[in-house]
Amino acid sequence: MTIEVGALNWVPEPARGYVKDFRVRWALKEAGLDYKVDLIGMGEASAPAYRARQPFGQVPVYRDDEVDLFESGAIVLHIAARSDALAPRDPAGWARTTAWVFAALNSVEPVAFWLMDLRREASTTQAEQARLARAQDRLKTRLDSLSNWLAGRLWLERDVFTAGDLMMTAVLRELRDDDLLTAYPDLVAYTERGLARPAFQAALAEQLADFVPDP
Amino acid sequence: MTIEVGALNWVPEPARGYVKDFRVRWALKEAGLDYKVDLIGMGEASAPAYRARQPFGQVPVYRDDEVDLFESGAIVLHIAARSDALAPRDPAGWARTTAWVFAALNSVEPVAFWLMDLRREASTTQAEQARLARAQDRLKTRLDSLSNWLAGRLWLERDVFTAGDLMMTAVLRELRDDDLLTAYPDLVAYTERGLARPAFQAALAEQLADFVPDP
Repeated sequence: MTIEVGALNWVPEPARGYVKDFRVRWALKEAGLDYKVDLIGMGEASAPAYRARQPFGQVPVYRDDEVDLFESGAIVLHIAARSDALAPRDPAGWARTTAWVFAALNSVEPVAFWLMDLRREASTTQAEQARLARAQDRLKTRLDSLSNWLAGRLWLERDVFTAGDLMMTAVLRELRDDDLLTAYPDLVAYTERGLARPAFQAALAEQLADFVPDP
Repeated sequence: MTIEVGALNWVPEPARGYVKDFRVRWALKEAGLDYKVDLIGMGEASAPAYRARQPFGQVPVYRDDEVDLFESGAIVLHIAARSDALAPRDPAGWARTTAWVFAALNSVEPVAFWLMDLRREASTTQAEQARLARAQDRLKTRLDSLSNWLAGRLWLERDVFTAGDLMMTAVLRELRDDDLLTAYPDLVAYTERGLARPAFQAALAEQLADFVPDP
């Protein structure tokens, strides 16, 4: 099977290692599947030809002999459905894997991004500070829940790493060094377990090596 | 097959008809599957017994003979995998359906919620106004993309309604009457096509009828 992943050939420094094709590369390496990366420029990603594949002009896109796909969550699930390395094969185990992929992308990541966005500018008025406090509380509530869930577990579904862990640790990694996350040593340890995986390390090195030098 | 959906027995008025079990009820009605609704109070949703099923203390939860599941995205995909009414059966068509479910939940909904949250308080300082403008631009960019994609299409994947349309119109519906959405008559018309479906109407009536009176 020929697999092609579309990624950007350049992003600003802070985004390197975090662009979402990273999650797809990680999944493919966990699954042991070979693939080819098509690098495109940011201008190309906005052009109509690319938008016929990715309506929002984002990366990644993915193509194999069967499907032409966008949205990293959907791509990772598609890969997971084809590999024992990313999800149990029984219906119950598969369904739980999908639940955690959605939980990472819909219940945790937006709440974290929201807070990060608020923090980009100082909150000076009382209303702004109330908004910031609300965003912090919202994230803290989610991290509390996750920490409670993980008590005594290696991965979200006990001893087996799944695509759900891939997505959840990829999301938590974006909070690395943040006080809100470091208040939970168990969540830090869980994230580090994800980041220590050889497939993670290989995917990270590969994405970083694919960027062209700054113009 | 016995299907049970867990939902709240009461929420404040503005949330009625929007609580996320609504999306699951809609999917089940599109699929023509019978189910039973378990109504719980908000206190019960925070209790450890419930959190063993739903780690974040949210609704909905879902159970059938095979799976015990949370996250409405995952539940709707699980139902879609069991019904011709919500997704094509071929791998390519199925994959596209999952892409749109993720697009609705990860690329559109968080951007909309972000803006709604910012609007809850007046933006008075220059920094706040810049943040609000940024959030509006971000949503406008997504709506532009979606509007371009939908040109000449009845549903996201041309003539066939899928779970992706269910999720996308459920998300756009939350922007109903908002100037940002009404600037796109095609997106309004698309949303209304979703809302006009008998399964949508039946699910809405059912959720509203399930709430107990205000205390």
